Amino acid sequence: MEEWGAELAKSALSLKEPVMEIPARTLSNTIWDEKARMLRLGPEKIHRRFLDVKESRRFMQTVLMLRLIVDAIRADVYPTIRDLYYNGKHTIVFKDPLGRVHRENTWDEQAESNGVIEDIEVATNILREEMGISADVKGKVVGPIVVRSQGYELDASKFGETALSLPVNVDALEIVKVEASYVLVIEKDAIFQRLVREKFWSQENAVLITAKGMPDRATRRFVKRLNEEYRLPVYVLTDGDPYGIYIYSVYKSGSIKLSYESERLATPKAKFLGVAPLDIERYKIPDQFVIRATDRDIKRAQELLKYPWFQNDVWKKELEYFLKTKKKVEIEALSAHGLKYLHDYIKDKIRGNKFID
Amino acid sequence: MEEWGAELAKSALSLKEPVMEIPARTLSNTIWDEKARMLRLGPEKIHRRFLDVKESRRFMQTVLMLRLIVDAIRADVYPTIRDLYYNGKHTIVFKDPLGRVHRENTWDEQAESNGVIEDIEVATNILREEMGISADVKGKVVGPIVVRSQGYELDASKFGETALSLPVNVDALEIVKVEASYVLVIEKDAIFQRLVREKFWSQENAVLITAKGMPDRATRRFVKRLNEEYRLPVYVLTDGDPYGIYIYSVYKSGSIKLSYESERLATPKAKFLGVAPLDIERYKIPDQFVIRATDRDIKRAQELLKYPWFQNDVWKKELEYFLKTKKKVEIEALSAHGLKYLHDYIKDKIRGNKFID
Repeated sequence: MEEWGAELAKSALSLKEPVMEIPARTLSNTIWDEKARMLRLGPEKIHRRFLDVKESRRFMQTVLMLRLIVDAIRADVYPTIRDLYYNGKHTIVFKDPLGRVHRENTWDEQAESNGVIEDIEVATNILREEMGISADVKGKVVGPIVVRSQGYELDASKFGETALSLPVNVDALEIVKVEASYVLVIEKDAIFQRLVREKFWSQENAVLITAKGMPDRATRRFVKRLNEEYRLPVYVLTDGDPYGIYIYSVYKSGSIKLSYESERLATPKAKFLGVAPLDIERYKIPDQFVIRATDRDIKRAQELLKYPWFQNDVWKKELEYFLKTKKKVEIEALSAHGLKYLHDYIKDKIRGNKFID
Repeated sequence: MEEWGAELAKSALSLKEPVMEIPARTLSNTIWDEKARMLRLGPEKIHRRFLDVKESRRFMQTVLMLRLIVDAIRADVYPTIRDLYYNGKHTIVFKDPLGRVHRENTWDEQAESNGVIEDIEVATNILREEMGISADVKGKVVGPIVVRSQGYELDASKFGETALSLPVNVDALEIVKVEASYVLVIEKDAIFQRLVREKFWSQENAVLITAKGMPDRATRRFVKRLNEEYRLPVYVLTDGDPYGIYIYSVYKSGSIKLSYESERLATPKAKFLGVAPLDIERYKIPDQFVIRATDRDIKRAQELLKYPWFQNDVWKKELEYFLKTKKKVEIEALSAHGLKYLHDYIKDKIRGNKFID
């Protein structure tokens, strides 16, 4: 990051026009990499020229943000993106050659300063978390894994009924040892708590992770590391509705709008354990436990059908079954067959290779 | 709980009508205890009689739920309230004396089975968490505190950049040692992360806790334990808007609708650190960082003004200032004065006794 700044300064000092080259974060520059099974940014670049009136504002914003971030690192502070917005926002007053006074804000809204941070991420290929920017973290972990954070070793198999909360920057988390058979990612926190208390993870020798619904960046990054660095199979367990499948989709591939993140955060090999639409029949969930889908569910399922990573017969069959029957279920509906049926369900899915890719 | 069941069974076997006595969870039975500074249920009781046609359905539901909970404890499973709903829902088919067939569900909706659980809680004075019922947990902790869960000792001063996630049942968490000067409860998770990474807690010798916005029951119970069992001062740090004050209010007193929980979950001695409405003037937050309040903010502030625990001059002045100026700020706006100003702000508030009761 400092290198990039130094380069820009050098060209300015040598009286050349400083130019920033930044991968374009646009839909037209988002491509589906079939081999990696991942969305990526394409080759298109934006060239932010200092002397281009349309570009100079964003150019200056980027330089300002770079300075704020580097200063924060040097001062050992870990601002949030909002802190950076407020810290960097001020009004520049200047006179033009005709003597008229102009006032301009460095940035007007948080969306503007956030966009600048995203530019810096894709230009430097460094995640904001690694730049020391703080953010919400939802992920928690238990199971046969030992990590080290700032010299402290934490053994997530010795947490009793508590859990280990992930840090913002999971790349600074050293994974000392992980001897698990698989990683189970659980949508619902209460189900995670159940399985912790019922010692499911030690019976199964599995790492359990939840991010309480839609995952944050840190949890996605951590799941990716376990899958790619430690070759652990990753299974995602959600409610039986399109929102659950969407959560799986975010772990697996990220969103189309934020595709520039996918390379660092997505886990293309993650499998969907369930509850799948057809599980209502497969696991004989009684009709009185089935919930009628809303219009929003249906719209979401129609969108899922278009995603490149759902283009296979199995997903088509599942999603079309959902669209035909309009039936959804909560994962807790499995308890109609007994309070421990959830364990049997998970084991049956994994042992029987009944998950979906 | 088993005792209560045994008593009911005894009266049934001795051919007396079984009657359940349950404190009424109604607004008219909610009283403000000025001395304890807490909402409590009053003396009104509901008597659920087995032979009263209007009451027998709820009577049977309560017996069914008691059985499910006791069975779960014996089987070492920890269902969520939704698991219990699904596990206990079935259709009873019976003939009346005229030979007509009737069908009735044990319960129709989750709201119904949840209400039964609440009845059992107030009747037995046992929290659902202690009955082994699982739920979402949002709270995480770092700082000079050592706890023990199922035999495992966890020292929250040795977590590096990670944090300790609270368990569902914090009453089963043994607090081995806590040598803190105070407890800082932080609304925003990202601010919690900042303060963890900046080692604020070790400089201040403080326990830091966040529940990411509106607190869950486990976090409220844990804060109460630290305050009442360990006499630690509790300060709550939120955004400078009525929602932040409302979050403080939930930690301090609970909600009027769920007042039956307050005795076990509220921390009446919790203090509000800020950001208070008048802090915009006190800490000179520039106008361009002030956000205009929405109608919803204003409505919420008007409601807060009516709460018994906000009936003092300081709160009236703060809330009326807000209603007059309609100004709110995010806590990150403090960063306009520098990225480390947040530290100074917290210390100034605590050292200078500038918090609000």
